[in-house]
Amino acid sequence: MDSIDTKIIQMLRKNARESFATIGKAVELSAPAIGKRVKQLEEKGIILGYSLKLDHEKLGVATKAYIQLTIHQSSTLRTAYSQIVHQEEVQRCDRITGEDRLSILGYFKSNKDLITFIERISQYGVPNTSIILEN
Amino acid sequence: MDSIDTKIIQMLRKNARESFATIGKAVELSAPAIGKRVKQLEEKGIILGYSLKLDHEKLGVATKAYIQLTIHQSSTLRTAYSQIVHQEEVQRCDRITGEDRLSILGYFKSNKDLITFIERISQYGVPNTSIILEN
Amino acid sequence: MDSIDTKIIQMLRKNARESFATIGKAVELSAPAIGKRVKQLEEKGIILGYSLKLDHEKLGVATKAYIQLTIHQSSTLRTAYSQIVHQEEVQRCDRITGEDRLSILGYFKSNKDLITFIERISQYGVPNTSIILEN
Amino acid sequence: MDSIDTKIIQMLRKNARESFATIGKAVELSAPAIGKRVKQLEEKGIILGYSLKLDHEKLGVATKAYIQLTIHQSSTLRTAYSQIVHQEEVQRCDRITGEDRLSILGYFKSNKDLITFIERISQYGVPNTSIILEN
Amino acid sequence: MDSIDTKIIQMLRKNARESFATIGKAVELSAPAIGKRVKQLEEKGIILGYSLKLDHEKLGVATKAYIQLTIHQSSTLRTAYSQIVHQEEVQRCDRITGEDRLSILGYFKSNKDLITFIERISQYGVPNTSIILEN
Amino acid sequence: MDSIDTKIIQMLRKNARESFATIGKAVELSAPAIGKRVKQLEEKGIILGYSLKLDHEKLGVATKAYIQLTIHQSSTLRTAYSQIVHQEEVQRCDRITGEDRLSILGYFKSNKDLITFIERISQYGVPNTSIILEN
Amino acid sequence: MDSIDTKIIQMLRKNARESFATIGKAVELSAPAIGKRVKQLEEKGIILGYSLKLDHEKLGVATKAYIQLTIHQSSTLRTAYSQIVHQEEVQRCDRITGEDRLSILGYFKSNKDLITFIERISQYGVPNTSIILEN
Amino acid sequence: MDSIDTKIIQMLRKNARESFATIGKAVELSAPAIGKRVKQLEEKGIILGYSLKLDHEKLGVATKAYIQLTIHQSSTLRTAYSQIVHQEEVQRCDRITGEDRLSILGYFKSNKDLITFIERISQYGVPNTSIILEN
Repeated sequence: MDSIDTKIIQMLRKNARESFATIGKAVELSAPAIGKRVKQLEEKGIILGYSLKLDHEKLGVATKAYIQLTIHQSSTLRTAYSQIVHQEEVQRCDRITGEDRLSILGYFKSNKDLITFIERISQYGVPNTSIILEN
Repeated sequence: MDSIDTKIIQMLRKNARESFATIGKAVELSAPAIGKRVKQLEEKGIILGYSLKLDHEKLGVATKAYIQLTIHQSSTLRTAYSQIVHQEEVQRCDRITGEDRLSILGYFKSNKDLITFIERISQYGVPNTSIILEN
Repeated sequence: MDSIDTKIIQMLRKNARESFATIGKAVELSAPAIGKRVKQLEEKGIILGYSLKLDHEKLGVATKAYIQLTIHQSSTLRTAYSQIVHQEEVQRCDRITGEDRLSILGYFKSNKDLITFIERISQYGVPNTSIILEN
Repeated sequence: MDSIDTKIIQMLRKNARESFATIGKAVELSAPAIGKRVKQLEEKGIILGYSLKLDHEKLGVATKAYIQLTIHQSSTLRTAYSQIVHQEEVQRCDRITGEDRLSILGYFKSNKDLITFIERISQYGVPNTSIILEN
Repeated sequence: MDSIDTKIIQMLRKNARESFATIGKAVELSAPAIGKRVKQLEEKGIILGYSLKLDHEKLGVATKAYIQLTIHQSSTLRTAYSQIVHQEEVQRCDRITGEDRLSILGYFKSNKDLITFIERISQYGVPNTSIILEN
Repeated sequence: MDSIDTKIIQMLRKNARESFATIGKAVELSAPAIGKRVKQLEEKGIILGYSLKLDHEKLGVATKAYIQLTIHQSSTLRTAYSQIVHQEEVQRCDRITGEDRLSILGYFKSNKDLITFIERISQYGVPNTSIILEN
Repeated sequence: MDSIDTKIIQMLRKNARESFATIGKAVELSAPAIGKRVKQLEEKGIILGYSLKLDHEKLGVATKAYIQLTIHQSSTLRTAYSQIVHQEEVQRCDRITGEDRLSILGYFKSNKDLITFIERISQYGVPNTSIILEN
Repeated sequence: MDSIDTKIIQMLRKNARESFATIGKAVELSAPAIGKRVKQLEEKGIILGYSLKLDHEKLGVATKAYIQLTIHQSSTLRTAYSQIVHQEEVQRCDRITGEDRLSILGYFKSNKDLITFIERISQYGVPNTSIILEN
């Protein structure tokens, strides 16, 4: 990774749909040259994908919460992790230090949905919920 | 927002660089029709932007951590928030319930960088750090 | 709900036995007109009922306490809730964030009654008691 | 207080607007006799008043929360109490055991209002907020 | 209980072996009159007994500790209490508020004895030990 | 200390007013011989004094509580200790491990007296109160 | 142990491979005299052995952590202790006051190794991990 | 570092005073060859020194404790660290995650010495002490 790759990543971070032509102008390279470099960044596994930044409130999210799930038995944490990480409300899921636990970031359409989620994951451990008041 | 908009968002979430032509085929509309709808989603503020998913380890991140910052004086929390949220190591910053505090997700190149960050933000409150062991 | 309804609710909050005539004078309407509006507020489910403010100490209450009940298993919380909320000592029962738990406000005739209550509900979870010193 | 007074209180607790005639029928006394007894219960300070049970959600309440306020300096707790108890969002305010603190029950029109409230009372102590998920 | 009884109790609190004659002089009564009053205080259950203040260190006590025992199941707390209170190392045993638990004050001849005690009572609940550093 | 001294202490622990004659019979010694041994136990500082066991409830105590006082500044703990230990409501005062703090056992005539006590000692540290429910 | 023994221990603490001749010069004794004294210190069990101070990072240690293991059942703590203390990653293992638990100091080649260790010991109790940021 | 270096370190870990001749025999090299390799391990900074394992109880240590020092102000932690680490009672001093704090392992001749130490370091932060019951 040289300084041009760094610049490409910087520009795509701000706008992942930026055209290769525009990026090319900024680093004084042709669009195909940029395309080739981007492809290499993907192949090296540095760029993992391209995603959307959404206004979740406008899509119906009413409650955002961090749920710390302290696991009953450490040996079951991996199972819990793999069951939880792919649920649709889950934005992030991290295993963190302190008491052995998962920190789960979830977006919910209502408090009722949050409760349903808590009850569902409580088979794996003890949930502790913090509502996001603003971000 | 109708079911076509929902489908468009779904496809862009998986790959934000997806061409309008490909999306169009999936929903049986022309590429320009998709472009128009995407523009409207942007204007309504539903789509806020397009971003990269990166492998941060490959870019030099060695330590990921959640830092809970319990604020000395609630009245200074907004100042703290606006100073912290734009720092380069900060991935997320949320004000959450429980003791009045910020939950900060940071990516650091080393434990030394994490310590420097903790010391810098400790002017606003009492930091409590959890290292991410895996995610 | 218009400003007259708001005024009616305000007056009934202070004194739920206020006569419709007195309320009528305050908002320049007839007693039957007030009666009709109150009936509508009841039918819309805005007014749920009329209750007493009592001096519980004079009725024999010696100990008031908040009991936080952390539930053994989140899936049993609803059962616990419905068993607890109707018990005679219980003034309020709320499911709150943090560790999944019920916050129960209870009025008791003695410490002995409080202990009996704690032991009874401990089948559902771990009780944590705070005595009200003054209110 | 005899068993008739107890019965009267019971009936008024269910419906504080119950007519003295209806109560009278239930205890086999005349309406004026009930009126006289109720007046005595008021004069003895057993009945403190008559209040409404409202559906606060229908009146615009979006967030209910318990806020535990641990006081910076115990000697200022009384001042804090008298400032807080009369604020419009406050439903209850109790001084409880454990760390010297107030347990405040507040109803708020939005998370923003809750935050404003927290910041306002944080001059007296350290607030710790639990959102009511259902009740 | 009149002021003479109060004075008698005060004098016996300082020295439980004080002769009735000496007490009598202080309150201007005869020794037999004091004896009669003391007997009455015993019969009314105000005076429960007479005990020694010992220097436990000189008798071999090396470690004093408070052990908070959080009970697994509140319904077993009475059993636990009656098993623990009569053990020879136990100076006090009180059921206290907060999480349902016993506060046990124990005097031990060594850390080894303390560990044995902790392990013995851990069948009833989770012990939490604080060593007394000075008193 | 031989086995006779041990026996003497045992008997005085049960009843500190036991006559030397009765003790003498139990250990097959004369009353004066017992008196001499008791005097020696006092002179060696093994017996520190003789005290009363009282039924404090009958003397007006309504609230017994443990108050843990976490000291603001460890260097002031000795001052705090010497101010607190001699107050009339204080039964015990011990410096214990964990966060640097005093464990205070107090007997109070009412919740109001407990509050006054808490506010008075809060100049030295942060009080945390547990009510004794039964003992 | 006299002042010469104290001096010998001091010098060996700084450098356990120090020759007896050098130590001898410092205390004005012959090398064989030092050798004899060292042997006696070993025989009395004052010197238990000689060990290395290593730069563990250079030997591949990437993560140092304290793991507090709160034991499920106090009676199993000794078994847990003897299983854990001899594991290769374990530098220290101490039973400490507070909730009945082991404080384990471990050095690990990676976060993955730390996780494996945590999961292995979690059969004995609830692990709580603190990463060492610098020492 | 090859497998012979690893073996040398292993043997010196068990006994840091092991002669090079004995080590040489085990790995089939001459004593001088071992000496040369050890010198290189020292020069590379892998071996930092040679130390004693002592029976501290026999040298007068009566109380071993972990003291967690939560720092008042993160920016002063380095100063605190450098003041504390070289004190004679201190065996280890590590900055750890969670609330920003030092974990200090200290050996003390008496509880009085422990108290003096706690009071001395409390100028930097809030000490929390756990006594080592056995190790």
